[in-house]
Amino acid sequence: MIAEILSIGTELLMGQISNTDAQYISRRLSELGISIYRQTTVGDNNGRVKEAIAAALSRSDIVITTGGLGPTEDDLTKETVAEALGLDMVFDEDSKRHVETWMHRIGKEMTPNNLRQAYFPRGAIIMPNTRGTAPGCIVRTKDGKSVAILPGPTHELQAMFENALEPYLRSLTDTKIESRYLHIFGVGESKVETILKDLFHSGNPTLALYCGAGQVYARLTARVHTDEDADALLDPLENEIRARLGDSIYGSGLETTLSRVTVDTLTERKETLSLAEGATGGCLASSLTDIPGAGRILKGSFITCNDAALTATLGIDPAVIREFGAVSAECAEAMAGSCQRMTGSDWAVATCGITGPEEAAPNKPVGLAYIAVAHSSGDIRVFRHEFRGERTWIKLLISETALDHLRRVIAERT
Amino acid sequence: MIAEILSIGTELLMGQISNTDAQYISRRLSELGISIYRQTTVGDNNGRVKEAIAAALSRSDIVITTGGLGPTEDDLTKETVAEALGLDMVFDEDSKRHVETWMHRIGKEMTPNNLRQAYFPRGAIIMPNTRGTAPGCIVRTKDGKSVAILPGPTHELQAMFENALEPYLRSLTDTKIESRYLHIFGVGESKVETILKDLFHSGNPTLALYCGAGQVYARLTARVHTDEDADALLDPLENEIRARLGDSIYGSGLETTLSRVTVDTLTERKETLSLAEGATGGCLASSLTDIPGAGRILKGSFITCNDAALTATLGIDPAVIREFGAVSAECAEAMAGSCQRMTGSDWAVATCGITGPEEAAPNKPVGLAYIAVAHSSGDIRVFRHEFRGERTWIKLLISETALDHLRRVIAERT
Repeated sequence: MIAEILSIGTELLMGQISNTDAQYISRRLSELGISIYRQTTVGDNNGRVKEAIAAALSRSDIVITTGGLGPTEDDLTKETVAEALGLDMVFDEDSKRHVETWMHRIGKEMTPNNLRQAYFPRGAIIMPNTRGTAPGCIVRTKDGKSVAILPGPTHELQAMFENALEPYLRSLTDTKIESRYLHIFGVGESKVETILKDLFHSGNPTLALYCGAGQVYARLTARVHTDEDADALLDPLENEIRARLGDSIYGSGLETTLSRVTVDTLTERKETLSLAEGATGGCLASSLTDIPGAGRILKGSFITCNDAALTATLGIDPAVIREFGAVSAECAEAMAGSCQRMTGSDWAVATCGITGPEEAAPNKPVGLAYIAVAHSSGDIRVFRHEFRGERTWIKLLISETALDHLRRVIAERT
Repeated sequence: MIAEILSIGTELLMGQISNTDAQYISRRLSELGISIYRQTTVGDNNGRVKEAIAAALSRSDIVITTGGLGPTEDDLTKETVAEALGLDMVFDEDSKRHVETWMHRIGKEMTPNNLRQAYFPRGAIIMPNTRGTAPGCIVRTKDGKSVAILPGPTHELQAMFENALEPYLRSLTDTKIESRYLHIFGVGESKVETILKDLFHSGNPTLALYCGAGQVYARLTARVHTDEDADALLDPLENEIRARLGDSIYGSGLETTLSRVTVDTLTERKETLSLAEGATGGCLASSLTDIPGAGRILKGSFITCNDAALTATLGIDPAVIREFGAVSAECAEAMAGSCQRMTGSDWAVATCGITGPEEAAPNKPVGLAYIAVAHSSGDIRVFRHEFRGERTWIKLLISETALDHLRRVIAERT
């Protein structure tokens, strides 16, 4: 089963917004075992949309469009699909009521233009929109192909995909893709590639690597019929990878992050954490507080981006800063120790570094960072790193690396 | 002049990475006044790439490809373009030296595969890669069309675009697009639309609105010949918009953010800021420290995500928390005041709120937030908001709104 995605929107062609919809749909389709051979983006132009739909239908079994369902005259996806397939547009009373209710809820007047959102190509399966006005729909062609029409706004599209389109797509296919993700930190991509070299092949299951901030994700994919057991294919591969990479694997699952692992681990251990952020300037705390429940494991934390703040807020001895500098192993150690003692947390993590673009010194280049992990026992470990990249990227790399060090040090105290 | 973008990479079709390259190129082309009618993504498949190149050349004057320049067998963009245009591949000694030097610098062995990166379609203009191994190139067809071949990795592509492709494209066209951006906070998109209603039209210059986190961007675009003055078209429109929206406009320029405006304003005023982050948990500090120079205006700052941390770290009276709750105007006020006094900063901003998904109470729904702005004079203002969305989105909305309040309160003290 072959699908393609047709994104409709002049704002995409102008580069004003990024096409997150195409990425989302592609990922979901590949999880369903549906192959995607092409993504196309065209503007809000009747002729080009029509041509693109015809071309897509000549190549693929399923065409999924995004965008062009709004109330304005530019929005003409449904009409163009109907034209391309020789169908007329019919009115749907339920959809009209939905649009009315929704407009009322957001305090807006129903306009004649909104009525267009209640018209669909004849015979279409209507997909309700639980997060906005415009319903979507699925049109079956005479030769058994499908055109699915989704709204452009991401949160509307994703809900409609999950609630309505995915069940429909599942009904079309009896093969599916089952994927597992292993998250690896502390081993570079090329080294992971070398370690796992003989496991990459085009058979079933397959293995692929992707890069994140300082980390690598391995995706293990099995293609199975719905009544088969993907585990039988994936378990041996996963076990082999785990045996080779050991504790460099910090988690599994698509949505796993070092922040989530940190919050989960500390919650389970009933332990607390405090932070003293120099180089990372809030980035580390923010990545943790993105995770629900982080507030329960986080003791008070500190952001100290200059010498004065280090002394005034964390009580760092000015002599340490004078002698070794604010970016030094000594300062990181003092920050973590002070932070742990001030808050009484079980663990404290401190970061200091040069994030650039200015302020590099001859022996302290942009990207230099020290990370310290302190435990309430008084034990403090300090790690030195040199990262490369832009300021925000360096902040992120230091944050992620700090969480990896914390994870490994915690693991020693089981 | 019409262009289209052809993105090549199976990882894009699988949804593993997002197509930021297409967005970047689209934006740059539209700034150059080059129209883009289509973006297409295909996988690393010789047949489909060749077909897509031929189709693109039949429609457009310029085809820009991204991806497929790596050393592996999957990477076949240059070869496929050569095939499609009936050209053979020729070796370039300079490029070979570049690849060798680069591989040496990153501590890797030159492999026979890397040699492929030094071959180009005959007659191509080679574009050096200042950030990676693979050079790009531009191939002119017999009928005066251009195929520009860029590498996939974003930082390599962007440098090559700016250094080599953009000058080439400028030489092809004598019209260009000049754009200005105005950033608006505190007025919803539909209200902005109403206020500016009569200024939207399809003439020259044009006006368009885009949404960000709690804010709206207006883009003013003039299409001019290179020797004309875009200012003559844009000044009157900008002045009219500024007259209508007043101080809701916080800045101009594509890259402007509230964080940047905050850092610039405080730097100029030689004033300092400290933060007490409850709800935002580091997000506010991190958005500020993304800006170079933020370290100089930020005094020590605090992250206090639970009642105990509020008391232990910021010295908030437990009676305040008991009586009003940690999410209350009273608590926000106490946080900002305490933060200002502890650090001696000129300004302090505090946030508290319910970011969800749990922990909502009957009268304290997810999204409720209080933002307090304190000045060293003792003046403290508190603002109440209700936001909607997911946890990370709410954190971002509170952070941005806090910076907008700070900006407005600062403006009163000139």
